[in-house]
Amino acid sequence: MEIKELKINGKRLNDNIKELAKTGMNEGGGIDRALGSKADYESRQWLINYWEKKLGKKARIDAIANMWIDCPGNDDKMPIVIGSHNDAVPDGGKYDGAMGVLMATEIMETLIENNIRLSHPLSVVSFTGEEPNPFNVSTLGSKVLCGRLKLEDLKKYKNRDTGVSLEDAISQLGGDINKAAEAMIKPGQIEAFLECHIEQGKRLETAALPSAAVSCITGIYREEINVSGEANHAGTTVMWDRCDALTAAAETILAVERIAADYKKDNVVATAGYFQVMPGEANIIPGKVKMIVDIRTDETEIKDEIISLITVAVKEIIERRGVEINRTVILDQEPVKMDDVIINAVSSGIEELGVKPVKLVSMAGHDAANMARVTRSGMIFVRSIDGKSHCKEEYSTEDDIELTGNAMLNAIIKLDEEL
Amino acid sequence: MEIKELKINGKRLNDNIKELAKTGMNEGGGIDRALGSKADYESRQWLINYWEKKLGKKARIDAIANMWIDCPGNDDKMPIVIGSHNDAVPDGGKYDGAMGVLMATEIMETLIENNIRLSHPLSVVSFTGEEPNPFNVSTLGSKVLCGRLKLEDLKKYKNRDTGVSLEDAISQLGGDINKAAEAMIKPGQIEAFLECHIEQGKRLETAALPSAAVSCITGIYREEINVSGEANHAGTTVMWDRCDALTAAAETILAVERIAADYKKDNVVATAGYFQVMPGEANIIPGKVKMIVDIRTDETEIKDEIISLITVAVKEIIERRGVEINRTVILDQEPVKMDDVIINAVSSGIEELGVKPVKLVSMAGHDAANMARVTRSGMIFVRSIDGKSHCKEEYSTEDDIELTGNAMLNAIIKLDEEL
Repeated sequence: MEIKELKINGKRLNDNIKELAKTGMNEGGGIDRALGSKADYESRQWLINYWEKKLGKKARIDAIANMWIDCPGNDDKMPIVIGSHNDAVPDGGKYDGAMGVLMATEIMETLIENNIRLSHPLSVVSFTGEEPNPFNVSTLGSKVLCGRLKLEDLKKYKNRDTGVSLEDAISQLGGDINKAAEAMIKPGQIEAFLECHIEQGKRLETAALPSAAVSCITGIYREEINVSGEANHAGTTVMWDRCDALTAAAETILAVERIAADYKKDNVVATAGYFQVMPGEANIIPGKVKMIVDIRTDETEIKDEIISLITVAVKEIIERRGVEINRTVILDQEPVKMDDVIINAVSSGIEELGVKPVKLVSMAGHDAANMARVTRSGMIFVRSIDGKSHCKEEYSTEDDIELTGNAMLNAIIKLDEEL
Repeated sequence: MEIKELKINGKRLNDNIKELAKTGMNEGGGIDRALGSKADYESRQWLINYWEKKLGKKARIDAIANMWIDCPGNDDKMPIVIGSHNDAVPDGGKYDGAMGVLMATEIMETLIENNIRLSHPLSVVSFTGEEPNPFNVSTLGSKVLCGRLKLEDLKKYKNRDTGVSLEDAISQLGGDINKAAEAMIKPGQIEAFLECHIEQGKRLETAALPSAAVSCITGIYREEINVSGEANHAGTTVMWDRCDALTAAAETILAVERIAADYKKDNVVATAGYFQVMPGEANIIPGKVKMIVDIRTDETEIKDEIISLITVAVKEIIERRGVEINRTVILDQEPVKMDDVIINAVSSGIEELGVKPVKLVSMAGHDAANMARVTRSGMIFVRSIDGKSHCKEEYSTEDDIELTGNAMLNAIIKLDEEL
């Protein structure tokens, strides 16, 4: 078979997604498969078993328990790596993470069963602990690979529910954090990384497109905002003599919402998700509110402008209401550009299937952002139905998944030729 | 001495307030004396001991552990009862409750040491558990006296922290809830009830007056409001496709604040004090908010109008934002008029001291509201400095307390003549 005519086995890929979803599926149909859980372990065993039985590949477990399988290449080149993560958010969906690992697996399986060997070695990776988890560390596996987390950092993490150390949890999964330095990717060790993931938004659905290349992974900026008023008796304090922290905080979040919404851009969002009111009694005017505002955009100038506009709004609220409002930056993650060679290869791979190629900013963080620190990195998105994600309703159609798998296969063949 | 020239001993009263404040005083200077606490017990022992040693009166403990002392009257009349409560809110002040009990005690002590016997018998009462407490029942002592709580109700309460039943806690304090029916006040059993309390607001301070009669105890109306939007990813959900329960709730509480403030009346207030946001994670758009709105006024038409105006505001928010907002009435306590004979006696008592008599609505609930169900009931307020209450900064000057004690003595003498 001519390599250009090669297709993945869409039915096999979709069957594997259903099969892997059985590990950790709760009674309501959501997936519970957090880092270190029994289901995390079981899903890993499923993958190791599948890789060995169907691809004849023995899994390699690195220091942070990322799981790898490798195919040799025809030439003496650095490997192309494809994959995603196998863990899930609590009560999450079947696709976020798992689909990317299984699509990478399907691509390697397709090459093996067609006796095709690329010029580059090809590796499949399933990253450890990408999602928020009880150890309070996300994109764990890729953070260790790119050197953002080192042994001394890893030693500190503990499961907030059980008290188990990250060291013990990783050891249970076959890793050894004491060898974290060995897992770090050195310059010239990997040629390129490509991750397939669901979009988790509605932009592809709105555009009636099954798939797209990712141009950039959004910056994430977070402020803790503390509003201090005066706790007082809800009956005896007249309305014109109140210093209500909650109504001042309400104006603040409405200002944040308005400022972000006014851009009318799908790559600019702001959210107050964490919001605590103290003392929180029905008969006491709130004295304090603590909230976290999350601002995401790939355009750093817009982020800076939003922060300035919030400052103006907050100043007016402080002056009018007599509250104190203190803001502390707790996260300021720069946007991460995806590699142009990969973006073009993905776009071509999509276009070859007769689909209009578009580029999207990823508004969620991904392992691909960490991988961009040590290699060419890129992503391909699959349309999410209703934009739902991190819930049991998360869904992408079998046709979209198959088409994206073939687009990704095309992209890899193109990268193999070009790099 | 002519009874009209009788004066209380202001120094003794103020010294007693300082002395009783030592039971339950924490390191920061606040008072921790919740129902059933060690400090509650100690403050009761202090009172029992003082009454016995200084007034020669043995305390009588009723079924719900209200504490009483009694002086006979010259005529065969029903008693006039004066007093307040000895418990305190967590980290509360020295005056809320304790001052009223000690002022009643001082008035009786003044009469005894001057060998004056009124026409009516006179009783001093210290009510059990007036403040919010771990048993989740306030104005407990007076609720039992007026029949709002009966044995079957009392059997249900448990300390939420320790699990101790109210039955056991009351038994520790010398009561016996199985005899609750005996404690109920029957028609014709009490002539009148008069309570002295701090204002807990700034209206007297603003008017530069030390004391006032209370015309009415506010109605308290509470709604639980549940706002349901759609929890979603804070990054991948564009601003124009959100259904954010928190920003919808923010508009709701700002509407409530504006509606109440627009009356510009010191007897109309509305507050959201309890406010919970779910799921409460920085990277998730809030899907649900649960809050309690507390509306207080003595004017029932205004309460009804506020509720209608909130309905209009909420309807607009629902239509514009696509959220659900469900409202449930959880409390609807009617305002309670104080007795005109008592109001006039208190006003005269104040005026006799050369102070302009005014009438105030009490914007907090008090035992006097329950007592109004079974007897003539009234209150006299002492100015609160800075309006502070339920905190360690709660303060009334010694001069104001002495003046109010003399006004209250005048009022009792007047009531004794008139009733």
